Amino acid sequence: MYSFKDDYSEGAHYKILEALVSTNLVQEDGYSMDSHCKRAIELLKEATDDYSIDVHFISGGTQTNLLTISSCLRPHEACISAKTGHIATHEAGAIEATGHKIITIENSQGKLSPDSIQHVLKKYSFEYAVKPRVVYISNPTELGTIYTKEELKTLYKFCKSNGLLLYLDGARLSSALVVPEAHLSLKDINKYTDAFFFGGTKNGALLGEALIFSNDDFKLDFRYMLKQKGAMLAKGRILGIQFETLLEENLYLDIAKHGRNLAQKVQSNLKAIGFKLLVESPTNQIFPIFSNNMIENLRKDFAFHTWSFIDQENSCIRLVFSWATPIEKVDEFLNRVNQLKEKGL
Amino acid sequence: MYSFKDDYSEGAHYKILEALVSTNLVQEDGYSMDSHCKRAIELLKEATDDYSIDVHFISGGTQTNLLTISSCLRPHEACISAKTGHIATHEAGAIEATGHKIITIENSQGKLSPDSIQHVLKKYSFEYAVKPRVVYISNPTELGTIYTKEELKTLYKFCKSNGLLLYLDGARLSSALVVPEAHLSLKDINKYTDAFFFGGTKNGALLGEALIFSNDDFKLDFRYMLKQKGAMLAKGRILGIQFETLLEENLYLDIAKHGRNLAQKVQSNLKAIGFKLLVESPTNQIFPIFSNNMIENLRKDFAFHTWSFIDQENSCIRLVFSWATPIEKVDEFLNRVNQLKEKGL
Amino acid sequence: MYSFKDDYSEGAHYKILEALVSTNLVQEDGYSMDSHCKRAIELLKEATDDYSIDVHFISGGTQTNLLTISSCLRPHEACISAKTGHIATHEAGAIEATGHKIITIENSQGKLSPDSIQHVLKKYSFEYAVKPRVVYISNPTELGTIYTKEELKTLYKFCKSNGLLLYLDGARLSSALVVPEAHLSLKDINKYTDAFFFGGTKNGALLGEALIFSNDDFKLDFRYMLKQKGAMLAKGRILGIQFETLLEENLYLDIAKHGRNLAQKVQSNLKAIGFKLLVESPTNQIFPIFSNNMIENLRKDFAFHTWSFIDQENSCIRLVFSWATPIEKVDEFLNRVNQLKEKGL
Amino acid sequence: MYSFKDDYSEGAHYKILEALVSTNLVQEDGYSMDSHCKRAIELLKEATDDYSIDVHFISGGTQTNLLTISSCLRPHEACISAKTGHIATHEAGAIEATGHKIITIENSQGKLSPDSIQHVLKKYSFEYAVKPRVVYISNPTELGTIYTKEELKTLYKFCKSNGLLLYLDGARLSSALVVPEAHLSLKDINKYTDAFFFGGTKNGALLGEALIFSNDDFKLDFRYMLKQKGAMLAKGRILGIQFETLLEENLYLDIAKHGRNLAQKVQSNLKAIGFKLLVESPTNQIFPIFSNNMIENLRKDFAFHTWSFIDQENSCIRLVFSWATPIEKVDEFLNRVNQLKEKGL
Repeated sequence: MYSFKDDYSEGAHYKILEALVSTNLVQEDGYSMDSHCKRAIELLKEATDDYSIDVHFISGGTQTNLLTISSCLRPHEACISAKTGHIATHEAGAIEATGHKIITIENSQGKLSPDSIQHVLKKYSFEYAVKPRVVYISNPTELGTIYTKEELKTLYKFCKSNGLLLYLDGARLSSALVVPEAHLSLKDINKYTDAFFFGGTKNGALLGEALIFSNDDFKLDFRYMLKQKGAMLAKGRILGIQFETLLEENLYLDIAKHGRNLAQKVQSNLKAIGFKLLVESPTNQIFPIFSNNMIENLRKDFAFHTWSFIDQENSCIRLVFSWATPIEKVDEFLNRVNQLKEKGL
Repeated sequence: MYSFKDDYSEGAHYKILEALVSTNLVQEDGYSMDSHCKRAIELLKEATDDYSIDVHFISGGTQTNLLTISSCLRPHEACISAKTGHIATHEAGAIEATGHKIITIENSQGKLSPDSIQHVLKKYSFEYAVKPRVVYISNPTELGTIYTKEELKTLYKFCKSNGLLLYLDGARLSSALVVPEAHLSLKDINKYTDAFFFGGTKNGALLGEALIFSNDDFKLDFRYMLKQKGAMLAKGRILGIQFETLLEENLYLDIAKHGRNLAQKVQSNLKAIGFKLLVESPTNQIFPIFSNNMIENLRKDFAFHTWSFIDQENSCIRLVFSWATPIEKVDEFLNRVNQLKEKGL
Repeated sequence: MYSFKDDYSEGAHYKILEALVSTNLVQEDGYSMDSHCKRAIELLKEATDDYSIDVHFISGGTQTNLLTISSCLRPHEACISAKTGHIATHEAGAIEATGHKIITIENSQGKLSPDSIQHVLKKYSFEYAVKPRVVYISNPTELGTIYTKEELKTLYKFCKSNGLLLYLDGARLSSALVVPEAHLSLKDINKYTDAFFFGGTKNGALLGEALIFSNDDFKLDFRYMLKQKGAMLAKGRILGIQFETLLEENLYLDIAKHGRNLAQKVQSNLKAIGFKLLVESPTNQIFPIFSNNMIENLRKDFAFHTWSFIDQENSCIRLVFSWATPIEKVDEFLNRVNQLKEKGL
Repeated sequence: MYSFKDDYSEGAHYKILEALVSTNLVQEDGYSMDSHCKRAIELLKEATDDYSIDVHFISGGTQTNLLTISSCLRPHEACISAKTGHIATHEAGAIEATGHKIITIENSQGKLSPDSIQHVLKKYSFEYAVKPRVVYISNPTELGTIYTKEELKTLYKFCKSNGLLLYLDGARLSSALVVPEAHLSLKDINKYTDAFFFGGTKNGALLGEALIFSNDDFKLDFRYMLKQKGAMLAKGRILGIQFETLLEENLYLDIAKHGRNLAQKVQSNLKAIGFKLLVESPTNQIFPIFSNNMIENLRKDFAFHTWSFIDQENSCIRLVFSWATPIEKVDEFLNRVNQLKEKGL
């Protein structure tokens, strides 16, 4: 049984493990004041070409989201998100638990447009409602789709013209950075957001996200908030070491390419033999639509999540590919689909 | 320069690193539903001899504290803590940020007694005040002192008679378990508390605390709260693997003994040559009082925290010892103290 | 200029003022421990025929809603509301500010059905989402529509079968109680809810809502929460006196009938002469659709809120009638509409 | 039985009732947008001689405190208060429920000094602790003592030099304003605070406090927060009418003088005949120490609160005097004390 459930089924990329082992007995200061965190911050400054950013390393995405959003809002301020946004659907009310409403926007591709936000601003413009302040997007989105450089720039400019902060959830950011037609780099992401996080957990790290603030509004006293929400690891070194490794020689891009390439291979093969997709995804997650019979048969050899109901006979599944996915498993999967298709499933 | 600042200056015990490496490419389910977490839970059930406990693995102590305390309180309920308690002094208002007051109690050894709690209950007994509900203790305390089995039992019985929940912060719990005169085991800790956590970070793990609920009041839906506070790691396996390793063949006790023994050696040597202590600590942290001159000289070779002001000429410092402390460094430290003392410092 | 903007443009019904004046210099205990609050509670027990209810008097509806909902939820639990519900649209994020998500349901008449709630329960049934616990309804709804006795009973039974608490916002409850075809009394409202409030502010009082708990889950320690949210008035007597007056000889029904009858007179007249309605309202608020020209002209003599956009040439307005609305003003309004209609507006 | 329990045992000063009655049927806009609130705001601008203040009317003190303090703090920021401060002892954890710690300071007269605050600033100066931001004082204090103009000025300057906001709880402010040796006016109070509230409930109103912001940091969007916490009354007019009446021709001072004069009469008489006081109070609350026998006998004719334990045979009681206290009751009380004293009690 091989699993395509997600990109966190294995441990860490071997270079990360090596770095953890080789530095293990060197004494370092705690709470991310160690030399590795410092080095990783330097590497992020180089990669973004922005030497005024603040960087914090946090163990996971939900914590990063709730910390960032709650740190910059006054009690009556709210966050705008796509209805499919991770904060709106998969974080157990984490944002509301910090006291803030999420205003959700219907959408088809997991993405927000200036028009849709403009509509919200018009509706939420009186003092008996909450006041929108942060726009949350994820790139890639929860549907594997992406904002290109041009789209991100447009959205950012719209936010700046409307007193909004743009925050980007980059749990799988590297997977967007390796999409050639997106024309995105860490420099662009940093330039066209007020804050974003660069995900480690889903790109080869044991755990960890690097949160980057370019807008000064986020910077003051943020370490107090890290501490308050229990997000400051005593051995902060383990986050520093991992990001240092991911950023050295652009390992993060190599890792992301592997998973993305396999996903694209499967997606294009499935399309070629006639399968439909829920969305066309350019990243490492794909959403093919199969008959329920096909799905039942595939489950004998492969694990994956059913994503959504299509009709009585068909469902959409999600397949995720990572640095750890062996190419042989991908071939096995495609062969199995072909076999089953030939049998009329 | 060698640091006695804390017990989290190095990475992980070698057996933990080995376990992480050897399991690295095996696919596991995420969010602590993996085989290692399951195995670690079994080992904790055996160690506590309580097969009805619920166990959750969390990355750090502050998060564990805020989750446990906030999960069981209604809006008007409060937590009682020693004034020196970690939640009252070093967690940046984490408990208050969840909406609850901490009622602090003055004390000299970092410990709470039934009498002192009784006094609080009497004072907080009307509806314009908050209502005490959880008693928070740490064992060892922030001063290295401990509650013995008998003391813990007495406190627990008092809490049960007064409608209070007893929660024990065990960030350095193993260090108390290896104090012979404490007569404490994981079984006792579990028996005489409603909830406690068994610390990994400060006893050889890269990160992680194991939170154990014996009282059913804590159990229902706790995973929702883990998710909501961003405490559920995608690769929960890394916590499972570490606790599995610590618990197998009682590695946690071996690790704790090493640090504790070195601390006791230094403490008894310092006493023998005439130095005073802030408190007599039976665990892996000690609090000797030195002249400021002595301290200044020691800092040339050793790093440590100044703990408190004693008088114009003397201060208390904190020295912490762990699994990673080499015996040679301990000897070097004692030699240096002796040399300086002979010079009249 | 006469205003149909709302049912709180004037002070209090004259009997309430008389009662405030006549009792003014009698000393009473503070914080709703006075004889008037006690008497009002007795009258509510009689009216509901339920002698085990708990009653609390609170100054306004938003505070009553946030107190009731937050008092019974654990951190991960959520509230279900119609998308048009007051808590979801007009309370500036009051529920979220207590840490809880509102799950909203699309609807056309401002009402929830068991089917629509069932759909939510199915969707929110895993531990990365919030857990629905309270169902919030308003009766009359924000659109003036009502739940009849039969509908309320069905909804309540559904909630009981699904582990949900049913809470009814009765800001204008009396206005529903005087709709003959609703077959509703305070006894029914109490029987088919877990908690509800009986509104004073919008039915002749200066301020005040009476919150009634039949379900024991809400009762324990609620006064602590009143105090904590600043909802306990020092001179609680002024709430007691008003509810005592409203309940004596069913004054609340007489007051409500006056406003409701005028609203129905206007609504039926407008229908008779060909105007459409956004919804058919049986209560004291009505929602006629007029041409923008008509609206502009009416504004010369009358004040009212525009409720919603209909099309380029027409809008829906809201007209509200109360105990204080003089019948002559209603006639003037209808005459003016007729005149304008004859002019072709 | 006559009660000296508090200054809110009766309804309202007759001029306030008259104003409520005479304006009752005039239509006004809701939510404090009415003509009376506007007029009251103008009168407060005149009284403070500060035409840039923002004013909000709120039903009670606890709500005013929690709103003001929570509106200006970021998540990690805290409030400093005397240990006897109302927010620290009598508001059921209201501030903590908004997520913020109260740092309390020991004191003897209910007052804070720059020195005591300086000590807190030194202690709370690292990122694992909360960050002090607001200083809360009450004037008069909970012990009836006051800050004079000079003391307030000194405290305010200290706060300004240390990045702190000074907020004054004026639940009984008028009672301080009529102490001749305090040299205080509304103008001074406004000048030497960032925010304060001018209490109505305890000075002749049915309910209501006027919250005044001179510092711009508090002003933006405060009405959103009023709405969110349920503090915006639909019939805001009833607060406006009352403050308009209190401020016209300085009625607030006349009311306060009556209560304060009676209190001072009793206090000086008791001292003259040999009774001790817990504190010497210059305002409308006094704290004499009587034998328990004396107290028991006085309770046959008078109601009052026991304030604190003195020794096995004596206790301190609190006596409160208001606009509504008849001079005859004061004389009766003094006579009774004299009689009991002559009997040797």
